[in-house]
Amino acid sequence: MTTTINGHLLIVSGLMTVVSSKEILYRQTLEMMEYKTQFAALFTSFTLIAFSCNEPQQKEETVIKENTASTNPLPSWNDGNIKKSIIDFVTKTTNEGNADFIPIGDRIACFDNDGTLWSEQPMYFQLAFAIDRVKTLAPPHPEWKTTQPFKALLEGDMKTIMAGGEKALFQIIMATHAGMTTDEFETSVKDWMATAKHPKTGRHYNEMIYQPMVELLNYLRANKYKTFIVSGGGVDFMRPWVEQAYGIPPDQVVGSSGKVRYDTLNGKPVLIKLPDVNFIDDKEGKPVGIHQYIGKRPVFTAGNSDGDYAMLQWTSTADGYPRFGMIVHHTDAEREWAYDRQSNIGKLEKALDDTAKYNWLVVDMKNDWKKIYPLDKMK
Amino acid sequence: MTTTINGHLLIVSGLMTVVSSKEILYRQTLEMMEYKTQFAALFTSFTLIAFSCNEPQQKEETVIKENTASTNPLPSWNDGNIKKSIIDFVTKTTNEGNADFIPIGDRIACFDNDGTLWSEQPMYFQLAFAIDRVKTLAPPHPEWKTTQPFKALLEGDMKTIMAGGEKALFQIIMATHAGMTTDEFETSVKDWMATAKHPKTGRHYNEMIYQPMVELLNYLRANKYKTFIVSGGGVDFMRPWVEQAYGIPPDQVVGSSGKVRYDTLNGKPVLIKLPDVNFIDDKEGKPVGIHQYIGKRPVFTAGNSDGDYAMLQWTSTADGYPRFGMIVHHTDAEREWAYDRQSNIGKLEKALDDTAKYNWLVVDMKNDWKKIYPLDKMK
Repeated sequence: MTTTINGHLLIVSGLMTVVSSKEILYRQTLEMMEYKTQFAALFTSFTLIAFSCNEPQQKEETVIKENTASTNPLPSWNDGNIKKSIIDFVTKTTNEGNADFIPIGDRIACFDNDGTLWSEQPMYFQLAFAIDRVKTLAPPHPEWKTTQPFKALLEGDMKTIMAGGEKALFQIIMATHAGMTTDEFETSVKDWMATAKHPKTGRHYNEMIYQPMVELLNYLRANKYKTFIVSGGGVDFMRPWVEQAYGIPPDQVVGSSGKVRYDTLNGKPVLIKLPDVNFIDDKEGKPVGIHQYIGKRPVFTAGNSDGDYAMLQWTSTADGYPRFGMIVHHTDAEREWAYDRQSNIGKLEKALDDTAKYNWLVVDMKNDWKKIYPLDKMK
Repeated sequence: MTTTINGHLLIVSGLMTVVSSKEILYRQTLEMMEYKTQFAALFTSFTLIAFSCNEPQQKEETVIKENTASTNPLPSWNDGNIKKSIIDFVTKTTNEGNADFIPIGDRIACFDNDGTLWSEQPMYFQLAFAIDRVKTLAPPHPEWKTTQPFKALLEGDMKTIMAGGEKALFQIIMATHAGMTTDEFETSVKDWMATAKHPKTGRHYNEMIYQPMVELLNYLRANKYKTFIVSGGGVDFMRPWVEQAYGIPPDQVVGSSGKVRYDTLNGKPVLIKLPDVNFIDDKEGKPVGIHQYIGKRPVFTAGNSDGDYAMLQWTSTADGYPRFGMIVHHTDAEREWAYDRQSNIGKLEKALDDTAKYNWLVVDMKNDWKKIYPLDKMK
């Protein structure tokens, strides 16, 4: 089987003599790409109700490089206007003698996640998680073999799932993101992240974070900026792994969420994830989320799509301090993906049109980044 | 006029020859205390929909004492079981060689606000704010002179307001907590905090924070605990002043909130406060709020009423690390107030009954604290 994704040829069959369940999964994922257009539209609603999780990671605090005096704080960034602008901004806002100085407590930096801190193609990674989870959860659910949309999903029949529309996706979401404790959901995310691999790169999904952005986060924190994620993705899906990936602790993650209920299970208090939307952190919901969860207006904001427009605008139109708005533009079809105005995932049109109006800086992934992922070699 | 509040005689008239609007305000506030019982019940619903605010404070970051080696980190606490327990807990959980060691990122400490970090008598301070605000907002609202409940409030006729029940309170809330931008609301809170004074102490409300608790917060932060407020009060009411008062930044404040809408006003993006409940952070809502906003289970939690029961229980029943649950018991009728099981504000009954079950430590304000407020003299 040969499938084309954004100009990349993926040869899936041939070598596959032993068809493991994992491989079936990949093939089904690839087949799903044929339905990408429809899926992306539906997934807009999906990711927004993409529910949530909790519980500590047993690890040491956020890795923060305290030494700001590094000769090159952004080694994966090519020299150029963007890198210079970042360093100039951080320098002037952290130099107490400068008119543009920003007191530490107001150094709030917000980052979108999908497409800004990690990849989002050929489908939002959280959707890949949901699909995988249905398969994992299937054994004790024999009824799924005869009930849609689970029957279709288990048989790799994406056409039937798509015919089921939003209702089918909601059922998949409910089965994988609700009806369990927050602890159970957290475990399922951690297990998936440790085992699942991306169909194109063959890497774990959390290995597909952007190394230049990780360096930017470290650089900002080294200069006493407080870094937040403000994502349309599910907050409970992000929290179990973003602390290790980006050095951002769970309480600094703003995302979409489902409601939870405080209850007792086997004599112990638990929080049960419910199939009800709590908050949708996308588009105009992003400045709302920033207000409700952070309570200060950011001075530095990065996004990659029109879903980040309102958040970028909310940042760049604030009075007082200088503001920095950044757009990650996907221009590298070889090392990552290339898409913007025509894409169903991460559509970037309105924000691109208004870069001059708001002085947003557009990162050209192909030319500004020496490497994309941490495991890549420098270009 | 002589009014009795919790056993304290307050002589209000006599000296009042020039009756300023401020004095009228105090007198009306005192009159309201006659309606305390009814008000407290209604205010349970009020404080819970007590809406919200935003925008940075132009100040330096959280005051954190970096030196943990202070000979007496809790100078306003009398020596005794509570003080010893606090220090023992912090010592064992921050000593890497100890079996009870907790990694920095998991050192989450949650504090209720009303009655735990500052006083809450004879009415929640946020209600005093709302009543004052109606008077401040009255001039451009001539219709209020003839419309209930505003007419009654402006005339100091609390009987009529109370007769209006929850509906009347909702109208007062809407007029003072919604229908404006988040910036405007923030300014109104700051203005009120800078000018209004408490009828009993004559002090600004933010001078009625508990000095021993401020020391506890500083002590925890000095030992790399991350401190959060988890309060039934409105998050937008708290954020403008808690950073200065407690060293807790806005993004570490969890509270009740109203919905906000991203909109444009005079060509500039704004967030408008709406008269719709977003989240109620009380009782079972507290562990829910901890999950949604913080995303980790606390190891240290302090409260003062049955509204904190679920949060304390959620803390003390967690697996793994040792946990610390604290209840501030109001036992000092002379320096503060004395109340628990029979009180309509800050009722403490169920949590007091279960202290042994969950190993919660009960702070006896009268005997454990050398001073109550920062401006008090040491006892």
